[in-house]
Amino acid sequence: MKVKITDLERLILSSLRKKYSEADSQLMADVLLFGQLSGKTSHGIVRLFVGNSSILSQTPKGKPEIIVKSKISSIIIGNGNPGMLVGPLAMKEAIRIAKKEKIGFMGTKDTHTSSGCLSYYLEKIASENLIGIIIAQSPPSTPVSGGIEPLFGTNPMSFGIPSDPRPFIFDMATSAISFGALLKAKTLGQKIPTNVAIDKYGDPTTDPEEAMQGATLPFDNSYKGAGLAMIVEILSGLWPGADFSGLNEQGGWGNLFVAFNPNLLMDVKEFKEKVHLLLEKARHSKTREGATVRIPGEHTLDKRNESLKLGMIDIEDNLYHALQKASKG
Amino acid sequence: MKVKITDLERLILSSLRKKYSEADSQLMADVLLFGQLSGKTSHGIVRLFVGNSSILSQTPKGKPEIIVKSKISSIIIGNGNPGMLVGPLAMKEAIRIAKKEKIGFMGTKDTHTSSGCLSYYLEKIASENLIGIIIAQSPPSTPVSGGIEPLFGTNPMSFGIPSDPRPFIFDMATSAISFGALLKAKTLGQKIPTNVAIDKYGDPTTDPEEAMQGATLPFDNSYKGAGLAMIVEILSGLWPGADFSGLNEQGGWGNLFVAFNPNLLMDVKEFKEKVHLLLEKARHSKTREGATVRIPGEHTLDKRNESLKLGMIDIEDNLYHALQKASKG
Repeated sequence: MKVKITDLERLILSSLRKKYSEADSQLMADVLLFGQLSGKTSHGIVRLFVGNSSILSQTPKGKPEIIVKSKISSIIIGNGNPGMLVGPLAMKEAIRIAKKEKIGFMGTKDTHTSSGCLSYYLEKIASENLIGIIIAQSPPSTPVSGGIEPLFGTNPMSFGIPSDPRPFIFDMATSAISFGALLKAKTLGQKIPTNVAIDKYGDPTTDPEEAMQGATLPFDNSYKGAGLAMIVEILSGLWPGADFSGLNEQGGWGNLFVAFNPNLLMDVKEFKEKVHLLLEKARHSKTREGATVRIPGEHTLDKRNESLKLGMIDIEDNLYHALQKASKG
Repeated sequence: MKVKITDLERLILSSLRKKYSEADSQLMADVLLFGQLSGKTSHGIVRLFVGNSSILSQTPKGKPEIIVKSKISSIIIGNGNPGMLVGPLAMKEAIRIAKKEKIGFMGTKDTHTSSGCLSYYLEKIASENLIGIIIAQSPPSTPVSGGIEPLFGTNPMSFGIPSDPRPFIFDMATSAISFGALLKAKTLGQKIPTNVAIDKYGDPTTDPEEAMQGATLPFDNSYKGAGLAMIVEILSGLWPGADFSGLNEQGGWGNLFVAFNPNLLMDVKEFKEKVHLLLEKARHSKTREGATVRIPGEHTLDKRNESLKLGMIDIEDNLYHALQKASKG
């Protein structure tokens, strides 16, 4: 069904306000809406109320706390608050510190839900003329190379690069399928693609439920993808004191939000102009007949802009009804 | 043929000394030997004298220069010196600064040869109880997603994580095949695997010469690998003022050497212990019957250690003869 974005936002806010303050609800609604409007719907409304790691299933122990570790680094202890609330705080701190010290280095721990679509944060960091790198650890999902036991989260790596007229944003899960996509397939009763997951015996499966009991595969089905997933597990899980491979579950999910000032190495104006040149060269580079170049991340921002322009988006009926219920119930 | 490592080192040093000082020759010989002894032979002796981007084909304009950009960041201008000479300088500076300031952030530009096996540097950074990240841009080789024109280098991403009894090192090209491996296949008259390269028309090829005139594929044959290659191009090529996608060729090849002190977020002892726990869990995790876990990077260090213990290594006859000739000629 088609719904007005303003109606959607109102329902999201009503749902969130039952547990969270007005300001906190707005922070989370912005992140959720970005996922929904940009077509990354596995990071959209479904995260509000579906599954054990939904936003509305959380019981925070208190407000998030910032523990300053050095002039350039801090850890935000989530205290059980949603990743989509801690994420905006980490982003703001990373920006604030990087503007002053050239690098802002933020770890987060003790969240137990997704931080949402990382492109949301990267667009904001890059719009402040800073280079952003965000990586995010989540509960064990992908095995080590050669293994079949879930050890690493779906562990996205993402990058935001300032440029004009708009930043270049690249955001990818290191697993072949994100937990959000498994959740969405399960909720909608859909199959998942082949070659993205195995069941608990290590056999290929297209059933999202079997995949949740088994493991997701690394995005490239090789040791490289598994290695990157492992690096994200160490740097954004273990390092800030969050969980890593189920060995520190009380630490919760972890994230690393890092903002770098381009002037570490180059004047920001020159940097942005050069990135623009590179993007233009890539966009117009040679293809096979009929093929088109795909600049990573552009589809996400284009789709979000198009949704905002229309003021309306398409949403699955049952998802919208679930949201209506959550906003009232 | 089997040769003594001491003989091999002597020949490498004799070759290098014709153009470089005793100290500089030793720095480069160490990097070359690491590649050869660890089985990453595409980053070994072949780089001394094969092709336009060989070490012995270079004509440096002067010594490398360090341009300080901030308290935590510098650019090393290579002045046409080999990547394997500039690399050790960048590594040492990154370590020195990170010990003092928690982050050492080094860009390099104006080299025109490979920096060698990045694991070499990462082992040293991690042995200083620092987390190392090195990425390296090289001449256009891999297309953007959807394209067939070489735009991004083979662009490795690599990570060194301190742990006991030894660090965890993960080093991967973002292309499906490294330029060194193409060079080695061409030199030895061998075919390359299927699905790693295309010819200049965009058709698959197993001929290394055709691949050099065409393009290498991203490691996963998807937009994710191409996106990571693009990020490496921007951060380690464009950012330090080196080339990017052929748009700044006089800038030469670029690198980013970054060392992070774990105490940005966590005490180093706790960090290393936790990494050890994670590695042990991964090593003993469940596999399908008969399968074995592969911890990235371990094979490289194991092979190097084994070579050093034996004091001998196997080397292709024609490569050894070419080295003998270079050391005399």
